[in-house]
Amino acid sequence: MDFSVSPTLTAHMEAASQLVQEQLIPLEPLLLSHDYPSLMEEMELVRHKVRELGLWAPHLPESVGGMGLSLLAFAQMAERIGYSPLGHLAFGCQAPDAGNAELLLHVGSETQQARYLEPLARGEIRSCFAMTERHLAGSNPVLMNSEAEFDGSHWHLNAHKWFTTAAEGAEFAIVMAKTEPEAARHQQASMLLVPMDTPGVSRLRNISVMGAEGYGPFSHAEMVFDDVKLPADAVLGRPGQGFALAQARLGPGRIHHCMRWLGLAQRAIDEMTRYLQQRAITADKVLGQQPLAQAMLSESVASLQAARWFVLHTAWQVDNGDFGQAKAAISMIKFHTANMLQQVVDNAVQMHGGLGITDDTILAFIFREERAARIYDGPDEVHKLSAAKQLLKVAQ
Amino acid sequence: MDFSVSPTLTAHMEAASQLVQEQLIPLEPLLLSHDYPSLMEEMELVRHKVRELGLWAPHLPESVGGMGLSLLAFAQMAERIGYSPLGHLAFGCQAPDAGNAELLLHVGSETQQARYLEPLARGEIRSCFAMTERHLAGSNPVLMNSEAEFDGSHWHLNAHKWFTTAAEGAEFAIVMAKTEPEAARHQQASMLLVPMDTPGVSRLRNISVMGAEGYGPFSHAEMVFDDVKLPADAVLGRPGQGFALAQARLGPGRIHHCMRWLGLAQRAIDEMTRYLQQRAITADKVLGQQPLAQAMLSESVASLQAARWFVLHTAWQVDNGDFGQAKAAISMIKFHTANMLQQVVDNAVQMHGGLGITDDTILAFIFREERAARIYDGPDEVHKLSAAKQLLKVAQ
Amino acid sequence: MDFSVSPTLTAHMEAASQLVQEQLIPLEPLLLSHDYPSLMEEMELVRHKVRELGLWAPHLPESVGGMGLSLLAFAQMAERIGYSPLGHLAFGCQAPDAGNAELLLHVGSETQQARYLEPLARGEIRSCFAMTERHLAGSNPVLMNSEAEFDGSHWHLNAHKWFTTAAEGAEFAIVMAKTEPEAARHQQASMLLVPMDTPGVSRLRNISVMGAEGYGPFSHAEMVFDDVKLPADAVLGRPGQGFALAQARLGPGRIHHCMRWLGLAQRAIDEMTRYLQQRAITADKVLGQQPLAQAMLSESVASLQAARWFVLHTAWQVDNGDFGQAKAAISMIKFHTANMLQQVVDNAVQMHGGLGITDDTILAFIFREERAARIYDGPDEVHKLSAAKQLLKVAQ
Amino acid sequence: MDFSVSPTLTAHMEAASQLVQEQLIPLEPLLLSHDYPSLMEEMELVRHKVRELGLWAPHLPESVGGMGLSLLAFAQMAERIGYSPLGHLAFGCQAPDAGNAELLLHVGSETQQARYLEPLARGEIRSCFAMTERHLAGSNPVLMNSEAEFDGSHWHLNAHKWFTTAAEGAEFAIVMAKTEPEAARHQQASMLLVPMDTPGVSRLRNISVMGAEGYGPFSHAEMVFDDVKLPADAVLGRPGQGFALAQARLGPGRIHHCMRWLGLAQRAIDEMTRYLQQRAITADKVLGQQPLAQAMLSESVASLQAARWFVLHTAWQVDNGDFGQAKAAISMIKFHTANMLQQVVDNAVQMHGGLGITDDTILAFIFREERAARIYDGPDEVHKLSAAKQLLKVAQ
Repeated sequence: MDFSVSPTLTAHMEAASQLVQEQLIPLEPLLLSHDYPSLMEEMELVRHKVRELGLWAPHLPESVGGMGLSLLAFAQMAERIGYSPLGHLAFGCQAPDAGNAELLLHVGSETQQARYLEPLARGEIRSCFAMTERHLAGSNPVLMNSEAEFDGSHWHLNAHKWFTTAAEGAEFAIVMAKTEPEAARHQQASMLLVPMDTPGVSRLRNISVMGAEGYGPFSHAEMVFDDVKLPADAVLGRPGQGFALAQARLGPGRIHHCMRWLGLAQRAIDEMTRYLQQRAITADKVLGQQPLAQAMLSESVASLQAARWFVLHTAWQVDNGDFGQAKAAISMIKFHTANMLQQVVDNAVQMHGGLGITDDTILAFIFREERAARIYDGPDEVHKLSAAKQLLKVAQ
Repeated sequence: MDFSVSPTLTAHMEAASQLVQEQLIPLEPLLLSHDYPSLMEEMELVRHKVRELGLWAPHLPESVGGMGLSLLAFAQMAERIGYSPLGHLAFGCQAPDAGNAELLLHVGSETQQARYLEPLARGEIRSCFAMTERHLAGSNPVLMNSEAEFDGSHWHLNAHKWFTTAAEGAEFAIVMAKTEPEAARHQQASMLLVPMDTPGVSRLRNISVMGAEGYGPFSHAEMVFDDVKLPADAVLGRPGQGFALAQARLGPGRIHHCMRWLGLAQRAIDEMTRYLQQRAITADKVLGQQPLAQAMLSESVASLQAARWFVLHTAWQVDNGDFGQAKAAISMIKFHTANMLQQVVDNAVQMHGGLGITDDTILAFIFREERAARIYDGPDEVHKLSAAKQLLKVAQ
Repeated sequence: MDFSVSPTLTAHMEAASQLVQEQLIPLEPLLLSHDYPSLMEEMELVRHKVRELGLWAPHLPESVGGMGLSLLAFAQMAERIGYSPLGHLAFGCQAPDAGNAELLLHVGSETQQARYLEPLARGEIRSCFAMTERHLAGSNPVLMNSEAEFDGSHWHLNAHKWFTTAAEGAEFAIVMAKTEPEAARHQQASMLLVPMDTPGVSRLRNISVMGAEGYGPFSHAEMVFDDVKLPADAVLGRPGQGFALAQARLGPGRIHHCMRWLGLAQRAIDEMTRYLQQRAITADKVLGQQPLAQAMLSESVASLQAARWFVLHTAWQVDNGDFGQAKAAISMIKFHTANMLQQVVDNAVQMHGGLGITDDTILAFIFREERAARIYDGPDEVHKLSAAKQLLKVAQ
Repeated sequence: MDFSVSPTLTAHMEAASQLVQEQLIPLEPLLLSHDYPSLMEEMELVRHKVRELGLWAPHLPESVGGMGLSLLAFAQMAERIGYSPLGHLAFGCQAPDAGNAELLLHVGSETQQARYLEPLARGEIRSCFAMTERHLAGSNPVLMNSEAEFDGSHWHLNAHKWFTTAAEGAEFAIVMAKTEPEAARHQQASMLLVPMDTPGVSRLRNISVMGAEGYGPFSHAEMVFDDVKLPADAVLGRPGQGFALAQARLGPGRIHHCMRWLGLAQRAIDEMTRYLQQRAITADKVLGQQPLAQAMLSESVASLQAARWFVLHTAWQVDNGDFGQAKAAISMIKFHTANMLQQVVDNAVQMHGGLGITDDTILAFIFREERAARIYDGPDEVHKLSAAKQLLKVAQ
């Protein structure tokens, strides 16, 4: 067992941190003030620099222009990148594009890869993933109203989805729909590749989430697919493979989120630390000398460190086995890290007092934005039950 | 000991609840979509109905047009009113006007009462309270940069404040400033009545809080008072009485908040209950049959009920004694109820899954808006220390 | 609504507190050092004084020699009595005798009352209640291996029970057994009155609980009833009424426990307060000036106060309605108060440092003894589910 | 970074686990029933087997008969050994002997090593460590009443200590006492080697802790050293070096405790897992199918895993640097792991229902015995403040 980091990876991590500090953190006020057009323009310049530094797409293999890192190495990069909410977009590894690219890489046909994967991996286009049904419980993915019928030459897709992240401005969607209604429950759905400009595709709205409708990659849409006509080769993988692929996509996706949350938690702790060191509470004392503040800091750092090593070990476990073996661990880091993040950010907000709830720091944004961490990709409760069933070997 | 509610109060509470359900809850989407002009227009109509029903200003004595309730009776009304975030504004008991009116009532001169209190109590004008210093720790109110000097005929006020709630559109401000720099530490400040149109008063911005700058009564301003010239009788109470009055104002203010939070927590529980009863998770099961959801509901209701009776008893204690005797209890209900609210709302959000973080329900609004509950009017930490010092009779 | 306490009740409460302070607390070291013979001897003297003061059996009607209090008044007495773990035994209201007496009072025949209730109410004999099955989950009381068959003239009882509290030295047991195996699930069991000297009754052991086997009223036995022959009138109430009676017995029993826990929590807080005031941590500072200690004290007091008023209100609700209406509330105070107690005692132990885990104070005893509070009479989890089903009106 | 375990260490760990399962767990009932003489006799046989297997003293270098492991390797062994409360005694690495041996190893003179270290390392004798003052706060080690004066040829020691673990049956004590009253505050104390049969040494009592006085290595004594005459070379290290040595001793000691707690937490989880798999709650369901039980299991495993990797990383940090650099991390794992253990064991007790509080399983023992984990070697609060001061670089 050896916890040291290789010199190459260390250099990558430091380069990433420097770029986040110098290029991205200064752009965060544009995000907080909802000035998306200026933000997107600036972000393009940063993405350019990321590519120049050879740090683009750390999660993807070199064959499609990525860094070709192990999951464990990516985890350590992701902490540095995720230190700013703008990080993953800047480094070309943002959800849902990261997961979509991995899907296309593993099961996309050559044509599909040429058309969708290559520009996506290069960051020239964006994509979205339409799985959650508007009127059904996301925690039970077998419940599905969306359907696609094959008429012998084309698919006809009818679906009503929501929480389709980053749909606004996306070039294509991957849509889950029932295509084999007669098959066994977990083999009824397929994934369909749908260009967003296909007739019948409409974005009803960007859902207002925590007070804001967001924009482009920072938005979640409600989508209607109304008798959308698609070519025969629109299916990703095989028909009926939808659930299996969704699971395959979500495993790494959950680890990716955990890695990113470590970065956000570290950010909150650094903000808290700086504030405690500087904020005067009397003529000769700073807040950091107040024992209650000290205890909250120590608890925050301890719980981040504990979550961190659990996440890194799980990434290593996946690198040295497969997602199946690590299934219980992935469920556990998902809820454990999300709860750690919520608590750490809550502490950081509290330590900042009134300032903490304003948008003069990044903390209030993380607080409200990442409340969703305990919900998306499976709520805490689902992961707790799922992990326990693995651990106990009892029926699901 | 008798926990029954008088028929009169019961009738008031039911009338208030009916109005909240029928008139206010339908207006909440205007708040959530930031359509303030429409909202304010509709609110005027509701306020008119409140007056017709004799439910206006439940916290004020009949002499100035209020309901003349005891604090304990007001507490029970406030739960019903606070069920909607729009309630207190509709019933004429919103912060900071409620506290300002109480101050004016107790120490305002006849002239001050005629000019400020009477239209304020009738809801014809709004006011604000400028205490928190822009650059100093609010938890230590002795730290104060704001100053007012008396030149023999006028006061000259210089101050930089923030978190001046509802400053936008207010007719006047009550401003804390140091006027007696040579006096003992707690006798240096005074409260000054400042019409908002006085030259030198400027509102720099509405502070963006949890992603939004708000509007009018739903905003918090950063204010500059630059050499503002005020008449000799601008002082509220006596010069040097500022801290004493601020304490006197904050005691009831904290109880008022607790009462309102009970209403918000009940709202969250009712939303959660309805959702658990209706949300299908399989073909024949609703979410409310899931044990983890059941446990979260029971824990939420239990902690609300416990906090509720503690708050009501404290109100009774004040009615039958004074704020001084109830000082430790007020500190304890402040942090205890605020934490209960945060946990209950967090549970309600979690139970709603993705829907819970959208603005399609009121929950995400309460979640982000009332994160401040553990901070304003004294953060948890300050109240925990303060209560303990009372309980232990050790030096502050 | 009126939270004041009548002068009569106040006088009773003060008399009870004085007796606990002066007579019982000095006996606690005998309990802690397991010197039961000396303890029981001293306790007899105290019980005599309790009777002289007219404070005997506050939970029972005057007709059988009790104080004839409402449940709400008893609750307030019980806090004072429960301040010492020896209190309830001293005042003649200890479990399981209190519940057994109530059962006999409500459904006992005249003969049964004369033989069992009268000496029990006077404290001349003790009893036990044998419900929990040795090998079956107590959380599902329908599971029952114990049986009694009626041969036309006598009952023949075969049962293996455990956690039969206070069996050692008891004069009689009330035993749950299946008597109507053909009836509907909840109508199969009956309660049987069994003199402990009946042939076939044997106490296998006092179960070692948290390191000690206890003694007499401070013990929990494993019992075997091996073909015990009982007269026809051994049934309490009607055959098949066992579950209904057990529920009727447990409702008040749970409230009684909650009331007692309030007393224990107050005790822990008083011990903590005194220690914080006296323990020097430097030459000129006591522990009570340490902010982390202050915060733990305030949190403890706040959570006790909140639980307290919730319990008292529930008692009032029962006085003014029935146990059925208050069913959800009783489940909620059961788990809420038990958890409050555990947390408060844990805080008190922690504040005492090394001393807190020794038997030089009462805290370690409460800590280990009342860990069971979250388990007996229904574990937290069962009450959370049960309360939620009431609140949601969904199927059990 | 590589989380794999070497084949050699894996083999050691498996051998240790097998011995714990087969030899030690069967002896635990002797511990629980306080049958210490039988226990000690059986333990000798097990210790013999441990030596035969080459697993003796994993924390000590080979030069004194230990396994010569790195701290990281010992950590992994210690988890397996600590799986039973009897483990550390069986493998020759129990507190306080482990820490005493390390002290003697690092600063003992040749004579001291020959007389004390060698038989101690071989497990032929036991020792104790008398630091905590009977009447002073252990959290402030500068407070010290114990004194030793040098008369030119001998030391005369006067001290009143308590929580002297394992004093009963120990061959010698290491005693902290003030020897240089004129020196700077942290240079006043020395450590003295005191054979327990020296005139003036008396053990007043084994302190009753959580209901039991224990025995030998399972006891904590109150000790009086009344004018104890010691030779000039009784000082360990240099006079005045006492605090420095105590710190040096406590750093590894805290890590050793954390490692051991990981083993105990794993034990609690394994007991819980087995019970959930086997305990029937209805005719066709086991407890492990109950969602609330599942959630508690998942939360327990997740928090153990997180703490585990944090502890292992800290051990690695010490192996690759020194205790000074890892000071904040050691404080954080101390409170974080102790709290994890308490929560996990609490969950395991709760899941076992009534059985959980009996001594029919090991859980109630761990529950009450390790409540002290959050107190000994520095209470949570002290470590939170201490870590924060390191993290913030503010004055202590």
